[in-house]
Amino acid sequence: MKYHETLDRGSEIENRLNELGKISDTPGVPGIWRAILTDSDFRGKSLIRSWMEEAGLNVREDVFGNLIGRLEGEVPETIMVGSHVDTVKDGGKYDGACGVVTAIEAVGALVKNGWKPYYSVEVVGIEEEEGSRFDLSYPGSYALVGKLSPEELAICDEEGTALKDLMEERGYDWKNIAKADVRSYVKEFMELHVEQGAVLDREGLSIGLVENITGMVDFDVTVHGEQNHAGTTPMYLRKDPMVKTAELILKLTEAVKSISSTGVITFGEMQLHPGVANVIPGSVHFIVDMRDGNREALLKEESAVAEILSAASGDGFDVEFKMYNHEDPVPMDSVLVDDLERCVQEASIPYKRMNSGAGHDSMIIAWEIPTCMIFIPSVNGISHSPKEYTKPEDLGRGCEVLGRMLVKRASEK
Amino acid sequence: MKYHETLDRGSEIENRLNELGKISDTPGVPGIWRAILTDSDFRGKSLIRSWMEEAGLNVREDVFGNLIGRLEGEVPETIMVGSHVDTVKDGGKYDGACGVVTAIEAVGALVKNGWKPYYSVEVVGIEEEEGSRFDLSYPGSYALVGKLSPEELAICDEEGTALKDLMEERGYDWKNIAKADVRSYVKEFMELHVEQGAVLDREGLSIGLVENITGMVDFDVTVHGEQNHAGTTPMYLRKDPMVKTAELILKLTEAVKSISSTGVITFGEMQLHPGVANVIPGSVHFIVDMRDGNREALLKEESAVAEILSAASGDGFDVEFKMYNHEDPVPMDSVLVDDLERCVQEASIPYKRMNSGAGHDSMIIAWEIPTCMIFIPSVNGISHSPKEYTKPEDLGRGCEVLGRMLVKRASEK
Repeated sequence: MKYHETLDRGSEIENRLNELGKISDTPGVPGIWRAILTDSDFRGKSLIRSWMEEAGLNVREDVFGNLIGRLEGEVPETIMVGSHVDTVKDGGKYDGACGVVTAIEAVGALVKNGWKPYYSVEVVGIEEEEGSRFDLSYPGSYALVGKLSPEELAICDEEGTALKDLMEERGYDWKNIAKADVRSYVKEFMELHVEQGAVLDREGLSIGLVENITGMVDFDVTVHGEQNHAGTTPMYLRKDPMVKTAELILKLTEAVKSISSTGVITFGEMQLHPGVANVIPGSVHFIVDMRDGNREALLKEESAVAEILSAASGDGFDVEFKMYNHEDPVPMDSVLVDDLERCVQEASIPYKRMNSGAGHDSMIIAWEIPTCMIFIPSVNGISHSPKEYTKPEDLGRGCEVLGRMLVKRASEK
Repeated sequence: MKYHETLDRGSEIENRLNELGKISDTPGVPGIWRAILTDSDFRGKSLIRSWMEEAGLNVREDVFGNLIGRLEGEVPETIMVGSHVDTVKDGGKYDGACGVVTAIEAVGALVKNGWKPYYSVEVVGIEEEEGSRFDLSYPGSYALVGKLSPEELAICDEEGTALKDLMEERGYDWKNIAKADVRSYVKEFMELHVEQGAVLDREGLSIGLVENITGMVDFDVTVHGEQNHAGTTPMYLRKDPMVKTAELILKLTEAVKSISSTGVITFGEMQLHPGVANVIPGSVHFIVDMRDGNREALLKEESAVAEILSAASGDGFDVEFKMYNHEDPVPMDSVLVDDLERCVQEASIPYKRMNSGAGHDSMIIAWEIPTCMIFIPSVNGISHSPKEYTKPEDLGRGCEVLGRMLVKRASEK
């Protein structure tokens, strides 16, 4: 594909994302919101369905509402490509949607050129990745790999409406959710997604090849000291948990940095009790969010943090902590990642191998089906915001890599 | 006075504090609340009035409601002694009340012994020191030194009731608030109060002689960094304002400690924005509360803090700060403090000279009238709590020092 073709393709994808981005359940607000089984969800999927059909695909919805466009190959074994159709509240036009629209564009261009693959190809628009309406993690992709149970569909939204009742009403065969399972015929899965971080943008690269989706460890920490009057308690009599917490933040940050360059640690949530200016707090509560794409490093970081927190008790302080979440990193399929790298190199697109710091449907699917992910840049790393933006040339390059990968993986046995 | 007499006196004071402590506007709750112009305020002052009369004092209320019991001397010039009658919400039996009850006990014992002072003596129960009903600072003592204006009495409580309307209803001549001014005839003021800190208790001392009521400086600080996804932003791309804040807390604490041993610094209030575990905060807002009884040291600490905060901007951070409060320390009258020291030494009571970290009516009065303060211990430094406690022997020793001081200062010209 020539550079000007890539650009044209990027503009076409951008146009479609703009059109899809107008469909939202919060009209008038700059941010978009499309959640499962809402009016905007149906209208959005109906638009995507029309693009799939235009691309020559045979379209259906599975029992969970995932939208699937199929190109029949010589054999029923299938390569699936896609991303999610829903958005967060107050979200943008790119997160999720760009992976679906780009995949339709890539397959449509191949079909137009008379491509007849050996393997069948399916483009999928996955439902409810963000879990913005129902507090369920990745139900659409769990359904695709046969791991969503009818019992889980009893969950209610904020207004008390059960997911299963909504599905029943709309004619989704939720009791037979197992029918959504694609494991018997899908041999590979690939997803294009915006990075949602600033690495590619800062380094001027157009493509990121995901090696691992990071693992995550969360600690809930409370530093107990001695609550006292801010005026009448001299420094030498204080057991100030805020000062202790400041020491811990610096120590923990240094520890993670010294263990691995891929590890990150964040203290995004903190409460001081009682939290008034003229009282030395009695306790400080905070959350430690740690992530690393490297499993071994993550385990080391987890131990280091637990050790530092354990050692912090004593001398009038009591540091209470528990690890309430541990998710191992999920590696992408190395054969697929190597093939992706060849495609990017053949197209002479600047790229890097990297980890994904956020979770994706690919993380769920990768445990069951060989999976790979392509990142394209998020300008300034902005995501989950109406300010989300990716340049059309990068949309075009993502589409080109996806097209080359389909040709490489699906054309022949 | 012999030790057993001191003990007896302490027990009597404790009995009275227990009796007064039963009068509260939140019956059934362990903590006390007596605020100005409430039912409990009238009942409390009525009980105190009866004790004053029993001690041989001639009792009146001034136009603000301060309760004043007078012992006529040879001349109308007066030495005033007392503290406040109100409490904080959910407060204890000692803060304020112990200074009034102890003064009544001291004067009563002298009168019983036939003491005829040269100067007149007034015991005062000051109103609304805590400002727990109306958001006014020290209105009772401001009234005593002629610095409360009728306009200020337009202030409303949480229920929208104006202070002046309540006063009108109860027959207080609020329009002529200037009548409460005692400056024309009061030559000295002395106050006994619980320390509200743990210094005396930890050091096993019964008396603290206040040299200064600490000054106070408050800074409002916001550290702006870059809000980002906690997973997708590598450490080297972060401008994390929470980590920056942790560094500042430690630097500022060290700076104050290195300047003076009487300085204190507290970070009791902090908010992270947006304040969720999986987002690197965009900004952290906190209050710096600094106090020092030494004026020169306080000014140095103020400059050091401002310098550190100024230097913290740059490299992707913007540290916004403003000093929104500066109160100079208020020195007690050195002649009176020296006399108090002689009294304590004559009575062989273990004591120390110290600063007060909290504000008191004495702080307001000291600008106009020579003033001194006696601290007695707060067990475990607890105050503003129903758990407030001072041992009866320390109440007795406080009373003894107050009695000796009255004899020293009022007996002769």
